[in-house]
Amino acid sequence: MIIVMKPNAKPESIQKIKAIIEERGLNAHISDGHEVTIIGVVGDKSKLVDQNLEIYEDVDKIVSVTESYKLANKKFHPEPTKVKVGNVIIGGDTTVIMSGPCAIESRKQLLDTAHAIKKAGAHILRGGAYKPRTSPYAFQGLEEEGLSYMKEAREETGLPVICEVTSLNAIEAAIKYVDMLQIGARNMQNFYLLKEAGKTGLPVLLKRGLSATIDEWLNAAEYIIAEGNPNVVLCERGIRTFETATRNTLDISAVPVIKSKSHLPIIVDPSHATGVRSYVKSMSMAAIAAGADGLMIETHPDPSIALSDGPQSLSFEQFEDLTSTLKPLINLLGKNL
Amino acid sequence: MIIVMKPNAKPESIQKIKAIIEERGLNAHISDGHEVTIIGVVGDKSKLVDQNLEIYEDVDKIVSVTESYKLANKKFHPEPTKVKVGNVIIGGDTTVIMSGPCAIESRKQLLDTAHAIKKAGAHILRGGAYKPRTSPYAFQGLEEEGLSYMKEAREETGLPVICEVTSLNAIEAAIKYVDMLQIGARNMQNFYLLKEAGKTGLPVLLKRGLSATIDEWLNAAEYIIAEGNPNVVLCERGIRTFETATRNTLDISAVPVIKSKSHLPIIVDPSHATGVRSYVKSMSMAAIAAGADGLMIETHPDPSIALSDGPQSLSFEQFEDLTSTLKPLINLLGKNL
Amino acid sequence: MIIVMKPNAKPESIQKIKAIIEERGLNAHISDGHEVTIIGVVGDKSKLVDQNLEIYEDVDKIVSVTESYKLANKKFHPEPTKVKVGNVIIGGDTTVIMSGPCAIESRKQLLDTAHAIKKAGAHILRGGAYKPRTSPYAFQGLEEEGLSYMKEAREETGLPVICEVTSLNAIEAAIKYVDMLQIGARNMQNFYLLKEAGKTGLPVLLKRGLSATIDEWLNAAEYIIAEGNPNVVLCERGIRTFETATRNTLDISAVPVIKSKSHLPIIVDPSHATGVRSYVKSMSMAAIAAGADGLMIETHPDPSIALSDGPQSLSFEQFEDLTSTLKPLINLLGKNL
Amino acid sequence: MIIVMKPNAKPESIQKIKAIIEERGLNAHISDGHEVTIIGVVGDKSKLVDQNLEIYEDVDKIVSVTESYKLANKKFHPEPTKVKVGNVIIGGDTTVIMSGPCAIESRKQLLDTAHAIKKAGAHILRGGAYKPRTSPYAFQGLEEEGLSYMKEAREETGLPVICEVTSLNAIEAAIKYVDMLQIGARNMQNFYLLKEAGKTGLPVLLKRGLSATIDEWLNAAEYIIAEGNPNVVLCERGIRTFETATRNTLDISAVPVIKSKSHLPIIVDPSHATGVRSYVKSMSMAAIAAGADGLMIETHPDPSIALSDGPQSLSFEQFEDLTSTLKPLINLLGKNL
Repeated sequence: MIIVMKPNAKPESIQKIKAIIEERGLNAHISDGHEVTIIGVVGDKSKLVDQNLEIYEDVDKIVSVTESYKLANKKFHPEPTKVKVGNVIIGGDTTVIMSGPCAIESRKQLLDTAHAIKKAGAHILRGGAYKPRTSPYAFQGLEEEGLSYMKEAREETGLPVICEVTSLNAIEAAIKYVDMLQIGARNMQNFYLLKEAGKTGLPVLLKRGLSATIDEWLNAAEYIIAEGNPNVVLCERGIRTFETATRNTLDISAVPVIKSKSHLPIIVDPSHATGVRSYVKSMSMAAIAAGADGLMIETHPDPSIALSDGPQSLSFEQFEDLTSTLKPLINLLGKNL
Repeated sequence: MIIVMKPNAKPESIQKIKAIIEERGLNAHISDGHEVTIIGVVGDKSKLVDQNLEIYEDVDKIVSVTESYKLANKKFHPEPTKVKVGNVIIGGDTTVIMSGPCAIESRKQLLDTAHAIKKAGAHILRGGAYKPRTSPYAFQGLEEEGLSYMKEAREETGLPVICEVTSLNAIEAAIKYVDMLQIGARNMQNFYLLKEAGKTGLPVLLKRGLSATIDEWLNAAEYIIAEGNPNVVLCERGIRTFETATRNTLDISAVPVIKSKSHLPIIVDPSHATGVRSYVKSMSMAAIAAGADGLMIETHPDPSIALSDGPQSLSFEQFEDLTSTLKPLINLLGKNL
Repeated sequence: MIIVMKPNAKPESIQKIKAIIEERGLNAHISDGHEVTIIGVVGDKSKLVDQNLEIYEDVDKIVSVTESYKLANKKFHPEPTKVKVGNVIIGGDTTVIMSGPCAIESRKQLLDTAHAIKKAGAHILRGGAYKPRTSPYAFQGLEEEGLSYMKEAREETGLPVICEVTSLNAIEAAIKYVDMLQIGARNMQNFYLLKEAGKTGLPVLLKRGLSATIDEWLNAAEYIIAEGNPNVVLCERGIRTFETATRNTLDISAVPVIKSKSHLPIIVDPSHATGVRSYVKSMSMAAIAAGADGLMIETHPDPSIALSDGPQSLSFEQFEDLTSTLKPLINLLGKNL
Repeated sequence: MIIVMKPNAKPESIQKIKAIIEERGLNAHISDGHEVTIIGVVGDKSKLVDQNLEIYEDVDKIVSVTESYKLANKKFHPEPTKVKVGNVIIGGDTTVIMSGPCAIESRKQLLDTAHAIKKAGAHILRGGAYKPRTSPYAFQGLEEEGLSYMKEAREETGLPVICEVTSLNAIEAAIKYVDMLQIGARNMQNFYLLKEAGKTGLPVLLKRGLSATIDEWLNAAEYIIAEGNPNVVLCERGIRTFETATRNTLDISAVPVIKSKSHLPIIVDPSHATGVRSYVKSMSMAAIAAGADGLMIETHPDPSIALSDGPQSLSFEQFEDLTSTLKPLINLLGKNL
């Protein structure tokens, strides 16, 4: 931690800050510049956490030097983490494709989709049973009924299954049926939910919040890992910007940033990010080329009657075309589809 | 709802859309332009909700014409809503000031604050017992112990009290102690929590999400009201932008926008929005002048040792100075402090 | 300037940075933390400007401590600047109202407006003769013909006049007719134009760019002042965010931020910021209450036929109503309209 | 154009709008909904341009249906445009790599770079002679001296050269020396400069503004093409968002969006977008995989002493490594490096 004093800070002000730091058993290194004085704090900064140094006289600003997340931090865990979901490994030699409908609508819809995506090479079946919808009047999901179809789909196809959870109730139901929990963008800082998901021990897919910085995202992951659950996979799904040509702006640079700051695997969801079917293929290619460990792609037997997010869902033919286009790229990068 | 076709859309494509609309008992008004054809949909659009018209051939885009929120909409409820919190009315002739510490740290801290803010003219005591913090290692709140101090403060001072809730557990505890529930910015689209807060019947302060549009915010309010609880107060607390001179960007124009679209009262929180104590007074003045129904201001007996958000908290002297500066402005606008 | 080294930076890396700093006659203060080492640079940092320290081995990041603008900086010029435009002083005891049409359309339109706004209490006439328009097919302004009407309007009413300039040609024409030059949002970082405007010696109104930070804005002002022209007035006119209920988001907190960092006057343009006539009054109130030195308000004899930005223009009656509503607030704050 | 009336709009209000439309020789198609009435305008909308329909009584909003750019619009020019720069074709079978220093610092620096990038497979040499810098005290470029080195570099290596222009003066100088002009992000809406660049007939690289929508960007291109110069190449270089881990957020989805809306070629600049050398390779891969027609990459003989943007520049070895990594991907996509 660095404390920057205002120009012409009084010597007493500087001494006061120094005293506060030293009272807590830390060291204060003072650098007198010709314009400003800087105080470097050395030692265990957690002892200073209750002290709002910014409000003392002549203090200009506090600059934080180290990240607040530890368990998610590559500095303290340089080896990449591999997360096992059923028999599928995310973060290893295979580029993992998750696919399925945004919302589970019926047993038939889900089972048809499960068979179709398996045939096209996908590894994990996704499906929403608890849908966070902007309007209370929109379809909110089949809840536990939907989860039971997920389990059935896994039994029929062997694909592990993932479902979004939006409350403790949903978690308690989901753990009976699914292999991986998803925390959605709107709940990325629902810290209560993060802790509860952490406690289950199940692998967790943590989507980035619409306006979350990468630093906040890794702190959210830290909440899950701090419960003793290291099985966290991050999912970039677009951030909110001023641009309206796409639903959100897919921040593909999050892939190399995460790879440089964390050991956690990261996948990309181009369906939600763009909101437009015809952009999904090129953004899938981009994500893979940037080094993503996998993709999440929306599919539906008939996108024209999907109850949620139809305009971005791929039909089965389109999904097959996608995976066959991706395969050579994945192989070029030394991985398997 | 308006369907805009692509230039040179085939007549069969237009007829197909028309047929889909009419099959559902709606009317399709076709306008043939020299560049594009537009189809206006007339009738009960909820019958079309499952139909993703955007994915049909030659459809360019769908333009929504009406808001999805009804109960929060001024069009269907032109009279301003007044929300009663204990003996205080928000949305009436009094500009309501809520104040108190970001986090409740001790019985003494809270009671001292309650007495000080009452003396300075505040109407409602706020205090956080469940703190949503970016890092799992930051102080998370005193939980039910903190709530009990809130109740005690109300008994001593007569001020109604408000506390943020972050989970169903927190709601179940809070309703035993407080007069108003707060849903924080990070939980604005935690729809499960909104519904549970709605069910309590207690007045709810709904903060705007960091990247929530006003339309999404009013839809979130709709979730609460749809549970039979019309006692919703909105709170603008800054949105996330590229600017870093302030913690967030306080969107004061949200005040007149809300007043034109909704009947719900709106207050402003300049403490969280700016994150800087010295900007709180001018932004409080601005909020009142723009027509806000009240303010939420952070105060602390000694901001230098506040466990949360010290740099933006006012001392008691500063808070008294604030209310005495605000009073003539409030009176000029024909209201009371 | 502070150099933060990576955790476990090699001693040689630290010594190398130290050597680079000292070779240039500066001092390096090293603080060895238990996690990271920090190097404070003391002395004239301009000697380091060509040295990209960030790219050396084991350097994590560089933290800048002082602002790059000097002449616009309150630290080096604590007294507020007053800018004289004709006989009007901006930054003094009078809250200055600039008003007029977005685009000058005809002699009659401009003269009628000049008389009407003068009668309602405005101090400066604005009018656009060179319009920066998103589309090349939109009306681009009357150019020098428009400027001649401005001059005539000043002669008839005594009001000083201001016009936006978008090129050196426009500056060369404008200085023959107007009292103040305006640099628009789109040209805030047209550094060539800033220098040329600076050279004229005329007072300059510098609008904030749509996505400019306050720091960049003050650096843009520095370009003008560095040409020997201290007569700069800043104008907040809304920044670009994700919100679509208003055309831009008016960042009223820019007012206290500018007041704390700079000595330059600042006015606010609620017309362009909101893009909606019915929000102009409340945002004008807010700007004044926040401490703005003035306002810029669009007016038009008949907004329904305005060639540019009609939906946000006030009619003369609406403008009179605005100034009479503002007057008591301005007086309350100890100023004159 | 669609006019949406307010709920319960008076019949007279609707008739008035209809009359205004018909007076101008256009047709008004009225759709009476159960909630709102919609009026579709059919005919040549340019006749309505001076009429601000939004301000009439009972009008809720105007929805624009067609884009304002025509010459840059794929609808009216379906074939992809190929732009010839010297002997290099952008938009064809070759993925074009532009490279060189952010700022030209010396003859030797530029010539060394030209030879190194040519050897590594680049096609066009870039170099800045007129630098738009946030602070007036930063290095502003060698101006015409720099341009002369560009010409010399072209003569020595045969590489076509491109330089940013920031004023009419710069254009007048540059056309004597370079093969392509660059309009930088800060000048994307400097419409005067766009027109002057258009008049030269030279190919123009148009960078996207920091907060420009894709629609505004294509309108800026329209300004150039409208001067009779169809040789426009777009360059995505990152947009401004709240994220600070990268300097800007590279919006790679702009590539498929541009490909769907325009016939103009698009390249990507990952150096400026990320501001971090170690992210350049993965984002270059992503851009190519998304379908970009080329890349712009900063290189410098010794990035540690670069006068501008050193932290993002690649050394020659790094650049060679980049092109050899990109080659197999480019070939996989059926193109040549």
